Amino acid sequence: MNERELIECIVHLAPAGTDDNLLLAMGDDCAVVRKDNGHVLLYSTDALVEKVHFDLAWHPPFLLGRKAVSVNVSDVAAMGGQPRYLLFSLGLPGNFDDQWACELCKGVVSACDEYGCTLIGGDTVASPGGVSMGLTVIGEMKERQVLYRSGAREGDMVLVSGPLGSAAAGLALCGHGYAGDSQFAELCRAHLDPCARVDLGQSLAASGLVHAMMDLSDGLGTDLGHICRASGLGALLFQDQLPAHPCLQRAAQLLKVDPVPWMTGGGEDYELLVVAPGDATKKLQERVAGLGHVLYPVGRMTAGKGIRLAPSEHAELSSAIAVEFSGYDHFNPE
Amino acid sequence: MNERELIECIVHLAPAGTDDNLLLAMGDDCAVVRKDNGHVLLYSTDALVEKVHFDLAWHPPFLLGRKAVSVNVSDVAAMGGQPRYLLFSLGLPGNFDDQWACELCKGVVSACDEYGCTLIGGDTVASPGGVSMGLTVIGEMKERQVLYRSGAREGDMVLVSGPLGSAAAGLALCGHGYAGDSQFAELCRAHLDPCARVDLGQSLAASGLVHAMMDLSDGLGTDLGHICRASGLGALLFQDQLPAHPCLQRAAQLLKVDPVPWMTGGGEDYELLVVAPGDATKKLQERVAGLGHVLYPVGRMTAGKGIRLAPSEHAELSSAIAVEFSGYDHFNPE
Repeated sequence: MNERELIECIVHLAPAGTDDNLLLAMGDDCAVVRKDNGHVLLYSTDALVEKVHFDLAWHPPFLLGRKAVSVNVSDVAAMGGQPRYLLFSLGLPGNFDDQWACELCKGVVSACDEYGCTLIGGDTVASPGGVSMGLTVIGEMKERQVLYRSGAREGDMVLVSGPLGSAAAGLALCGHGYAGDSQFAELCRAHLDPCARVDLGQSLAASGLVHAMMDLSDGLGTDLGHICRASGLGALLFQDQLPAHPCLQRAAQLLKVDPVPWMTGGGEDYELLVVAPGDATKKLQERVAGLGHVLYPVGRMTAGKGIRLAPSEHAELSSAIAVEFSGYDHFNPE
Repeated sequence: MNERELIECIVHLAPAGTDDNLLLAMGDDCAVVRKDNGHVLLYSTDALVEKVHFDLAWHPPFLLGRKAVSVNVSDVAAMGGQPRYLLFSLGLPGNFDDQWACELCKGVVSACDEYGCTLIGGDTVASPGGVSMGLTVIGEMKERQVLYRSGAREGDMVLVSGPLGSAAAGLALCGHGYAGDSQFAELCRAHLDPCARVDLGQSLAASGLVHAMMDLSDGLGTDLGHICRASGLGALLFQDQLPAHPCLQRAAQLLKVDPVPWMTGGGEDYELLVVAPGDATKKLQERVAGLGHVLYPVGRMTAGKGIRLAPSEHAELSSAIAVEFSGYDHFNPE
């Protein structure tokens, strides 16, 4: 059984229920529950495990605490909501270092402050297998503004809110001992201390111009695949439009790898993946420029199934290659 | 640093905030957030780790899934609320057994159904160190009915909703190979498949007669210590009034141990610990009898600090011994 099958097993077991206030349970970045006439609450939970999600060899505890919150809060940003409260569980091995643990907790509180949410509870447990963290974020927003994965329409533009593959490159650089190399500081930062796009998500939701949205946690191909399946569509990506950090190519050369898989399949960028009609693109770009954000068009929603990668928007369609993005399977990693 | 010091570090770091809707953050069974004019939402999170909280050698997966939910839902019962939604994270080692994992998930859904709450989300992760679970329950209740730990008054009676030490005895029995022994089936059940007192908690909260309440998760001494500190009082317990399962004495004889520490210090009974005025006791007992529940008076709130254990209510006070309950420290277990 792989991770997807396990999740399907759980989803299948859970009864549909007759709760009119439960607008969406599983299958999107957050569960959506009606709070009152006009507002909803958003809920999302994340578990992070040492050696699977992070490596203590190069991850400073303050930044690790911040990242754990950003990863979780990003799910609220992905619906267009405001994170309000956070619950934080911390599992530590018996021999943990006091100062290390305090730095981690300071990182958690620091990120909460930054996103405007309050730490309201948690749990501490012994974790013989290594450091582990569990986070649950509670967000809020207007019901009519919630952006789901399922709203994309044929012909819509696919946009991303920042360079792709930076976090994957940063992870590779840290793993090869370049965590302290100043020329790659921004790529390493993308891996060590990513930013959840909370203000951007809210602005896009409030615009009324976006059809579907999610965050880039598992990589462009995998995440766009979720939007395609939820919307019953396919997508065509244009390789020459994929935005990259100026240092990405240099990092790839240094590590002797092809940078394109970082951009199409690398996870943890936590940028927003936005689907909107073509004639709304310019308005959206102008709207978010005021917040210091950029939206890069990278492709188009198409009829059919699956995602294809073409060299450019104007290339022959026959030159597009079908790309199979299965996503990261926790139980069958490469 | 011990577990209490780590929690104090986190509590100290979290800013007080200026959120009028946050009625209580840390320090009780649940965080309490105002939902609307009259209702609050309750939030609690629990992390459960293999070898620390459960042993797969004798814990069937279906019952383990049920127990994880009961442990978490019990925090909502402890405030008097109704559990509505649950988020469930599951960490599994790479070589997990499909059927085992499905049984666990069936247990989670079974307990959710029983408590009237809906599984609305979760996460699945690889967990090289063993099985781990993270749960977050979302409850709801009337704001004016919420029962905190801090409302106890001097002279109030201390009551418990069921036999004490059954789960501790059950754990010891399972650990000694008696998990399948029919004469101890109920004690083992108390450890393997405890019940959160949701209906009882709601009835007590609605009565308007209870001053303070929490659930018995860490043992009578430790948990009553929380009420004492939160209320600025001490307590006197009467040993001859502590209710025990009829088989507890026999289990203690078999394992050659004193059963009293199970009753005063054994955790995981998940009965409710209730503090109410003496003249309300009979009314409360009659009220909950209709639900099939019993409330046993076990002691009294007193001025001063600390908890003392007297042989009986009418014994000389000088015969009471001061009992030091430190609670289970995950990072410094005995």
